[in-house]
Amino acid sequence: MDGRKKKRLLTGDRPTGRLHLGHWVGSLKNRIRLQDEYECFFLIADLHTLTTAYEDPSKVRDNVRELMLDYLSTGIDPARSTIYLQSEIPEVTELFTFFIMLVTVNRLQRVPTLKDVMHDLKISQPSLGLLSYPVLQAADIMMVRAHIVPVGEDQASHLEVTREIARRFNRLYKHVFPVPATLIGDVPVLPGIDGKAKMSKSLGNAIYLSDDTDTVRRKVSQMYTDPTRIHATDPGHVEGNPVFTYYDAFDPDKAEVEELKRLYRLGKVGDVQVKKRLAEILNAFLDPVREKRAGLAEQGKRLDEILREGTEKARKEAQTTLSLAREAMGLGLP
Amino acid sequence: MDGRKKKRLLTGDRPTGRLHLGHWVGSLKNRIRLQDEYECFFLIADLHTLTTAYEDPSKVRDNVRELMLDYLSTGIDPARSTIYLQSEIPEVTELFTFFIMLVTVNRLQRVPTLKDVMHDLKISQPSLGLLSYPVLQAADIMMVRAHIVPVGEDQASHLEVTREIARRFNRLYKHVFPVPATLIGDVPVLPGIDGKAKMSKSLGNAIYLSDDTDTVRRKVSQMYTDPTRIHATDPGHVEGNPVFTYYDAFDPDKAEVEELKRLYRLGKVGDVQVKKRLAEILNAFLDPVREKRAGLAEQGKRLDEILREGTEKARKEAQTTLSLAREAMGLGLP
Repeated sequence: MDGRKKKRLLTGDRPTGRLHLGHWVGSLKNRIRLQDEYECFFLIADLHTLTTAYEDPSKVRDNVRELMLDYLSTGIDPARSTIYLQSEIPEVTELFTFFIMLVTVNRLQRVPTLKDVMHDLKISQPSLGLLSYPVLQAADIMMVRAHIVPVGEDQASHLEVTREIARRFNRLYKHVFPVPATLIGDVPVLPGIDGKAKMSKSLGNAIYLSDDTDTVRRKVSQMYTDPTRIHATDPGHVEGNPVFTYYDAFDPDKAEVEELKRLYRLGKVGDVQVKKRLAEILNAFLDPVREKRAGLAEQGKRLDEILREGTEKARKEAQTTLSLAREAMGLGLP
Repeated sequence: MDGRKKKRLLTGDRPTGRLHLGHWVGSLKNRIRLQDEYECFFLIADLHTLTTAYEDPSKVRDNVRELMLDYLSTGIDPARSTIYLQSEIPEVTELFTFFIMLVTVNRLQRVPTLKDVMHDLKISQPSLGLLSYPVLQAADIMMVRAHIVPVGEDQASHLEVTREIARRFNRLYKHVFPVPATLIGDVPVLPGIDGKAKMSKSLGNAIYLSDDTDTVRRKVSQMYTDPTRIHATDPGHVEGNPVFTYYDAFDPDKAEVEELKRLYRLGKVGDVQVKKRLAEILNAFLDPVREKRAGLAEQGKRLDEILREGTEKARKEAQTTLSLAREAMGLGLP
């Protein structure tokens, strides 16, 4: 339609802290693969952190840098993909301001994630910003005129708001925005080391991409396994045992995994042994990531440059989009 | 505090159509006087028109030009005051996006004007934009770090939202914004020519600043007067009689007004006669306005220039303010 060769994909993260193995399994791994197929934009959504954490934005800058390190050390390639900082794209807030006219308060109050966030963060009175979250997200997505947004189930309801706004804008004014499709992948969820359903910073059960060798060893040694197994010689359960979920996710040697599962079921291999081996596997996975991270951290300036370049590139796109939107709406000086 | 000599005042209009005599009496007259005392910013709030009329912004540009003509022809002086177009100040939307984090949905739902507008315009489901209106207004006001905002009673509740946001921002981050004071003038309300309480475009009872001589004559001749008076010789009522409210507002010869009122009460002057004289007075008031308007309309380019220059000046202020706000919040590239 608009002469672009590859379809455009947008996704991103709020810079709220370091990424962990759960992020790798759930999204990073997928993104790195998608870089071939799509023109990817990776958004560092610092404005979004204000919707729930507006009282302390001072840490955001450090978090931005950590996120950059997480991205680049795992294989996001700034030569092919654009990493950019939301708050440096003022056009996003302009587009957001146009979009708030196109959605009702009632519609946003019905977005299921609003209630979830309010419950999780014990917010009794949502700010206007929190209510507006899906609209700000719509502005992010439409700012680069993205075709594809990979989302987990829980974010699908947000993207529906984006799609409604895109359709409404196009119908009211002029066709400017692709109505973005969701790429609802099978998003695998990695359990925490405590066996809880989800690895999460706030639950304190995460292994970070930036953890050192010893930390990984220690965390793995504390991992929750099969609570019904008392002795190493008892037959063990593999299903729902996070140790084996990690094996499935990180051990490239599938034959080894099958053999260990078999032995574990028979009570022929102990927890200590499978954990020790798992720590080796995770460290083998993380070693090149650490090496790359250390190299990047040393040249902090290069990191800032990559973000600046990405942001400049995204901003050009944003300016183009904004011109199209403003023209469609008939705004501006006579 | 910040070395500025005159205090700064902000007010403005939504470009929804030509201004009428009611606007003159209620605000324009006052603004023209305030230009001496304050550094005035007059905002043409085209984004605000989108909150209720987003479906047809095509007329907005024409309305902007009419508004400029209304301003300049009545005495707003671009050499002293800054007239600017909201949608050309993207910093406003950025500040707005920061401010939405600082106010709850509930607080905005309690703003009395929201219910009034919904009732007047028969809106059953407010858009997010309509709910956000007072916050966008806060961004306008704080963008120029205004000290004073002249408001009518009905807008005082909006300004309270601005004041809350200013205090909250200053407390959370750093003192950046003056907490603006309201200049609640005694805002006189001019009745419509139909005798209804308020002259208003939507009621179709307005005499416009841009009406020509014959139109004014015709409208005045149709004016509602004293419904209890059947013949010109019946004693008439002056109080609540719009004809005499107009005399009070526009006849510079107070002795003449008193004499006409006396005669009217005695039934010694007819409606036709007082109306004929009123039309003369209004036309005498409007003649220099028309002359100036015609001169300005001829040089449309100069008009656009004035708006562009004002907008550039306002934008510089906006950029300064935004830098201060962003720095206070710790936003931006590392």
